[in-house]
Amino acid sequence: MQQLFLIGIGTGNPDHVTGEARRVMADADLILIPRKGADKADLADLRRQIVHAVLGPDAPVVEFDLPRRDASGDYLTGVDAWHDAIARAWVDAAGQAQRVALLIWGDPSLYDSSLRIAARLDPAPTIRVVPGITAVQALTAAHAIPVNEIGAPFVVTTGRRLRDEGWPPGVDTAVVMLDGQCSFQSLSEPERYDIWWGAYVGMAEQILDRGPLPEAAARIVATRARARADHGWIMDIYLLRRR
Amino acid sequence: MQQLFLIGIGTGNPDHVTGEARRVMADADLILIPRKGADKADLADLRRQIVHAVLGPDAPVVEFDLPRRDASGDYLTGVDAWHDAIARAWVDAAGQAQRVALLIWGDPSLYDSSLRIAARLDPAPTIRVVPGITAVQALTAAHAIPVNEIGAPFVVTTGRRLRDEGWPPGVDTAVVMLDGQCSFQSLSEPERYDIWWGAYVGMAEQILDRGPLPEAAARIVATRARARADHGWIMDIYLLRRR
Repeated sequence: MQQLFLIGIGTGNPDHVTGEARRVMADADLILIPRKGADKADLADLRRQIVHAVLGPDAPVVEFDLPRRDASGDYLTGVDAWHDAIARAWVDAAGQAQRVALLIWGDPSLYDSSLRIAARLDPAPTIRVVPGITAVQALTAAHAIPVNEIGAPFVVTTGRRLRDEGWPPGVDTAVVMLDGQCSFQSLSEPERYDIWWGAYVGMAEQILDRGPLPEAAARIVATRARARADHGWIMDIYLLRRR
Repeated sequence: MQQLFLIGIGTGNPDHVTGEARRVMADADLILIPRKGADKADLADLRRQIVHAVLGPDAPVVEFDLPRRDASGDYLTGVDAWHDAIARAWVDAAGQAQRVALLIWGDPSLYDSSLRIAARLDPAPTIRVVPGITAVQALTAAHAIPVNEIGAPFVVTTGRRLRDEGWPPGVDTAVVMLDGQCSFQSLSEPERYDIWWGAYVGMAEQILDRGPLPEAAARIVATRARARADHGWIMDIYLLRRR
């Protein structure tokens, strides 16, 4: 593997794919698609659809089983070993291909491990990153809202941080990702916040809700649980603004 | 004007344009292109190129002169009057067209006024926002770096905030936009930071630099001044990470 293309494909809407992503996909000798068994959240089908739409039925695709993370010990140690295992899986799946592409959900720079996994490859290939539409943007576009107030900063953070550390200091806007637990429920003084929430943002399944946090919170928790049960998986994201 | 399409086009690379942006452009009766006199930073040429590439030479384009902001009084009052004037200019330029599109640099949600201007239109059209690649993503893709550390939050802020308020609290990563003054020079303890800087990110003119802040700062200031003189305009952005 001499070159590795990490191609942002957006959040599941094939229409998010950029001209650059199409061109770089066409430049690859091989496109790797990871699978997580029967887990629909691997979105392998969607990646297959995008490759098919861009390159046709004869696209050079290899699918591989994504190693599982050992969640029994320390979190960061477990992630470290897991990333090593994924790097080995990439090399095995790539075989003799020189220009290898991975289709990255959203954008390869944002809460994605591919760059860190790629740094473990030895010998090191040249890395090319193609930006893609993020869930942050798909959320704000769907709600037709700015992410920032005029000239003001905002934070992008995780559900875990919001639960553990409360409202982030120094900002009135926070976008929360990677939140499996509706962590907006943990905020003290919920009457000070408005929420703009979305699941499957940008996809045909998209669900949106918004409103003052005290009245929207329970509704979103219920909607999220129902959608997760219906689809077998869920990805959601939200923006909180303090009044 | 019954519908207004705010279409993110990315940061000046026609290859940033998404399938959705292409499709929505084709749906418009009219595409408005703002001009700022001889100011190359209006990037009207680039918008013309993108429209031409997507819709061909007969695309329904109307160009209009962007009103000037009165910078003599209070900043927010000046911006308010200016946004009113731009809303009127949109309506005048749109004429009888019902489905009107604007091509927005980067993404309509991020440090862009179009949504706030659109909210002044009366009667209010339906607004559709199409996300586009932001300068944040073009920067991190060009440097092949993640924007966040593992599970960690980051701030997106402005040069003015960094100068006036110092390093933002609660984060080790800040992306700085709208900075005409190389405000990274104002940080105390510069030896604690690394910087990843880019100008014209994603465009053919792209310039990158990176390194420990104490040694990169003077180099970036000089490069920026030279590039601005050479091109007649500049847009730059940077990511700072605290060690």
